[in-house]
Amino acid sequence: MKTARTQVKRVPKRGNYDLTTVCSILDAGLICHVGFVVEGQPFVIPTAYGRIENRLFIHGSPASRMLKSLQQGIDVCVTVTLLDGLVLARSAMHHSMNYRSVVVFGKAELVSEREEKLRALYAFTEHVMAGRWAATREPNEQELQGTTVLALPIEEASAKIRTGPPVDDAADYDLPHWAGVIPLRVQAGEPIGDPQLAKGIGVPDHVTQYLQNSVSR
Amino acid sequence: MKTARTQVKRVPKRGNYDLTTVCSILDAGLICHVGFVVEGQPFVIPTAYGRIENRLFIHGSPASRMLKSLQQGIDVCVTVTLLDGLVLARSAMHHSMNYRSVVVFGKAELVSEREEKLRALYAFTEHVMAGRWAATREPNEQELQGTTVLALPIEEASAKIRTGPPVDDAADYDLPHWAGVIPLRVQAGEPIGDPQLAKGIGVPDHVTQYLQNSVSR
Repeated sequence: MKTARTQVKRVPKRGNYDLTTVCSILDAGLICHVGFVVEGQPFVIPTAYGRIENRLFIHGSPASRMLKSLQQGIDVCVTVTLLDGLVLARSAMHHSMNYRSVVVFGKAELVSEREEKLRALYAFTEHVMAGRWAATREPNEQELQGTTVLALPIEEASAKIRTGPPVDDAADYDLPHWAGVIPLRVQAGEPIGDPQLAKGIGVPDHVTQYLQNSVSR
Repeated sequence: MKTARTQVKRVPKRGNYDLTTVCSILDAGLICHVGFVVEGQPFVIPTAYGRIENRLFIHGSPASRMLKSLQQGIDVCVTVTLLDGLVLARSAMHHSMNYRSVVVFGKAELVSEREEKLRALYAFTEHVMAGRWAATREPNEQELQGTTVLALPIEEASAKIRTGPPVDDAADYDLPHWAGVIPLRVQAGEPIGDPQLAKGIGVPDHVTQYLQNSVSR
């Protein structure tokens, strides 16, 4: 997977190229940033995604400029970034962040086969929250036809990870400034039921389970 | 600020164009995704940023491919996305997310004047954490010269925001599925002091204050 495009240029020791690492970061994220070029102009659009094996799926309305552009087989760059902490150094210039990020290069393909599209939509829904698909109405034929699904192979991909304490200049360790890491994580709050929720429908188990697990996300 | 490039194409009611909204989202984020094109290939790179008035600053090593490319005055797209919640609908297809995002288009300019560069580095540091600059060693001349700072005007920019409960098809409101929003926020954990921290240096007030305020971030 290491190519001229995916090689981590800055701080190469932070680069990591195995598929397991790449996929674990993709699975822990919720939003990707899709980069593509239209008439020389770069666009970076945040969107949800799903993964099945070594394919990343994005979806949306057939009218979406992003999806219309991408299905023409143009080059795309999809980036997922998870922020894990603020790295506070003794010197201003050595401030940094702990993070896990993945960059995937390639060309997206239209998913047109019905069963495959359904599998991709299953993956999206389960990516948002495990157990969700079984607790919702499945897509009907009209919705299936009214949704564009694209697949991007996770082949030319790289991960970049920073962990651990700040790294200051040797002479700065004697300074009287506090240094360290402030861990950051995404915390789920109490579920807010839809105001139009029918009476008697309680928070289901898969949501409760998600909240319990959200600590480790 | 509303131009052909920044007009929100999908779900136009989610588009928002005033500078105050754009800046409030930029100030609440920590990471931006920078999109640029090299030889036709789009790249999307996560990086920290700072803001002073209507200019967004990024910085890094002069050897960075991103910074070397951008200072040639090529088109850039910088996107900041804050995830506010999972929107769980009764139907799989109406699942969504609550979010605030900003897209800025333009061309970055090299910041070469010493005082302006210092102000930008101040803005970076204070963006990570208010009060941090005064509690660190300021950049020396070597660091200033060894850092590339670029400014992107926040002129051609747009914000897109989704809030509130899921929107299901009318017929689906009778389904027995739970629907609602799971709020998400970035939560700061307990500070982890640098293992090499000199004895007697406690967690400073600006860090404690940050932790108290992190609830609303």
